[in-house]
Amino acid sequence: MAESNASDRINRRIVMAARPEGAPRDGDFRLEETAVPEPGAGEMLCRTLFLSLDPYMRGRMSAAKSYAAPTEIGELMGGGAVSEVLRSNAAGFAPGDIVMADSGWQDYWTSDGQGARKLDPDQAPISTALGVLGMPGMTAYTGLYNIGQPKAGETLVVAAASGPVGSLVGQIAKIEGCRVVGVAGSGEKCAYVTGELGFDACLNHREAGFAEALAAACPDGIDIYWENVGGAVFEAVLPRLNRFARMPVCGLVAQYNAPNLKAGEAPPGPNRIPQLMRAVLTNRLLIRGFIVWDFADQENEFRDTVAGWLRDGRITYREDIVEGLENAPRAFQGLLQGKNFGKQIIRVG
Amino acid sequence: MAESNASDRINRRIVMAARPEGAPRDGDFRLEETAVPEPGAGEMLCRTLFLSLDPYMRGRMSAAKSYAAPTEIGELMGGGAVSEVLRSNAAGFAPGDIVMADSGWQDYWTSDGQGARKLDPDQAPISTALGVLGMPGMTAYTGLYNIGQPKAGETLVVAAASGPVGSLVGQIAKIEGCRVVGVAGSGEKCAYVTGELGFDACLNHREAGFAEALAAACPDGIDIYWENVGGAVFEAVLPRLNRFARMPVCGLVAQYNAPNLKAGEAPPGPNRIPQLMRAVLTNRLLIRGFIVWDFADQENEFRDTVAGWLRDGRITYREDIVEGLENAPRAFQGLLQGKNFGKQIIRVG
Repeated sequence: MAESNASDRINRRIVMAARPEGAPRDGDFRLEETAVPEPGAGEMLCRTLFLSLDPYMRGRMSAAKSYAAPTEIGELMGGGAVSEVLRSNAAGFAPGDIVMADSGWQDYWTSDGQGARKLDPDQAPISTALGVLGMPGMTAYTGLYNIGQPKAGETLVVAAASGPVGSLVGQIAKIEGCRVVGVAGSGEKCAYVTGELGFDACLNHREAGFAEALAAACPDGIDIYWENVGGAVFEAVLPRLNRFARMPVCGLVAQYNAPNLKAGEAPPGPNRIPQLMRAVLTNRLLIRGFIVWDFADQENEFRDTVAGWLRDGRITYREDIVEGLENAPRAFQGLLQGKNFGKQIIRVG
Repeated sequence: MAESNASDRINRRIVMAARPEGAPRDGDFRLEETAVPEPGAGEMLCRTLFLSLDPYMRGRMSAAKSYAAPTEIGELMGGGAVSEVLRSNAAGFAPGDIVMADSGWQDYWTSDGQGARKLDPDQAPISTALGVLGMPGMTAYTGLYNIGQPKAGETLVVAAASGPVGSLVGQIAKIEGCRVVGVAGSGEKCAYVTGELGFDACLNHREAGFAEALAAACPDGIDIYWENVGGAVFEAVLPRLNRFARMPVCGLVAQYNAPNLKAGEAPPGPNRIPQLMRAVLTNRLLIRGFIVWDFADQENEFRDTVAGWLRDGRITYREDIVEGLENAPRAFQGLLQGKNFGKQIIRVG
């Protein structure tokens, strides 16, 4: 395909058609067709191969203030992707190069190369730049070491344990000598988490008696709770947190879709804030929110370390690949409901 | 009095008569009279001069798990005090020495000297060992530097601003170049906080429009919120917190007396946890509970530094002294309602 004339071809792009109220629906997205752009002087033309879908994208669809500017209606859905360079007038990039960039939900894109990072296909499969060796992996690595600070013999609990962040958080904690308890949304996922990832236990949060099962799985309490979901898992964890427990907060998937939060309204009571703050005080908890780029200076350390673990077989990962850009909106809706099993990726090209 | 025979005298001691339901009442305390104890071999007999009353004592009156073991019914009320050594068989202590120790709500006590620290009356008035140079001062110093991490140009908000912790937190933050906004419970206190402590502003949380006044007093948002009260002040602060704001949590006076918390029940809704966690995530907040002894190794640094500031006139303090051990229960009830104005001390001896 690289040899065909790109300007004869159609570029499909998915834009935000409407701001979701609660869970996103099909109508919140729109597939548009345009001509494939022509690279100008100093620019390159790239074709998307793999598009990453991540929970943070839900936040950008809201108008509420967040850590990134909201997506405007009619604007291209943003997101990281792995692409192939088709033509290049950009210094340092040649046709056939594989690059990682925040190029969004579209088939083709042009760039002067700023923000694009060349991948080495011999180092690891190129799709890992979206997962274990990409933003989710770096989220796990930097949040765990900088905030979670795992120590041998401690107990770590992580939800979304079969996902790209949770699975690496737990595997690193195992390397550091922790007892690791995962939480996931199905028995199949839990079997993967204990069987292939090597966690000590995994609990299905959809099963009755989850809070009791969590307590039983953490006989020495919880020293690190990796908060990426919020909601019921958080409520079950809170009374089990040990003195000086740490809680890195990198996501709140369970509440992203709550429609009554968008207007700044709060869900029905009781109000759990006093209970939380009492736990913070009496157990001297540390709660700290972060996004991966708060630790941008650790990117090389992260990639070198985790790539080494991958090569040595000390960690593994799982991808959930959906075929076709046109299926990205549905896959994204499923992701927010936990329907994916592993890192959610769209094969585009 | 040091020369009289202490064993002829009466020792008054105040014990916890009942566990308070909500706010403590007179009947939750009982004054008992016993003989003054005789110091044994290696022990000293001391007479209490100044007794400290502190909000943490409310926590110990509850059976709920906290950072210290609960006081048992019939047990002496604990607390730090400054005392005079009357007789001594303890190595390193002589009659006339002034000591600081956790000796509780009583006139006389014996000890082998473990945990007693001799004071130098020439360094500062001895009552300051209960306040600015004691546990409250060290709470302010260690919590602010280790967790708050003030930087010049930032805005700090502290409640109970005329109290022993809040007043020092704000004065240190001023030394570090912060804009400092206090919150207090009366216009008189606010006048002291701005006039004598030198805070940039002080707001009366009992006045209507408090949240709006807070926003106006913090035009650049809030970088450090010193959490020692909880409740309405916290709710007004939360939406004003800046990205990367820090929140040392050392007390929750506003909820200590809430009777529905003792059974693990939560107050009526709405549930503000999702709102809080969303702020933690999007603004990358740091919330960390602590007690002063978590930083025990910084005690000398704290005392040297703050004593120096006191000598140089860079900081000041205020004491609220009530006469007579028998008035401690009432003074303590008032303290929990914010009726004190400055460090609450009972003059016992």
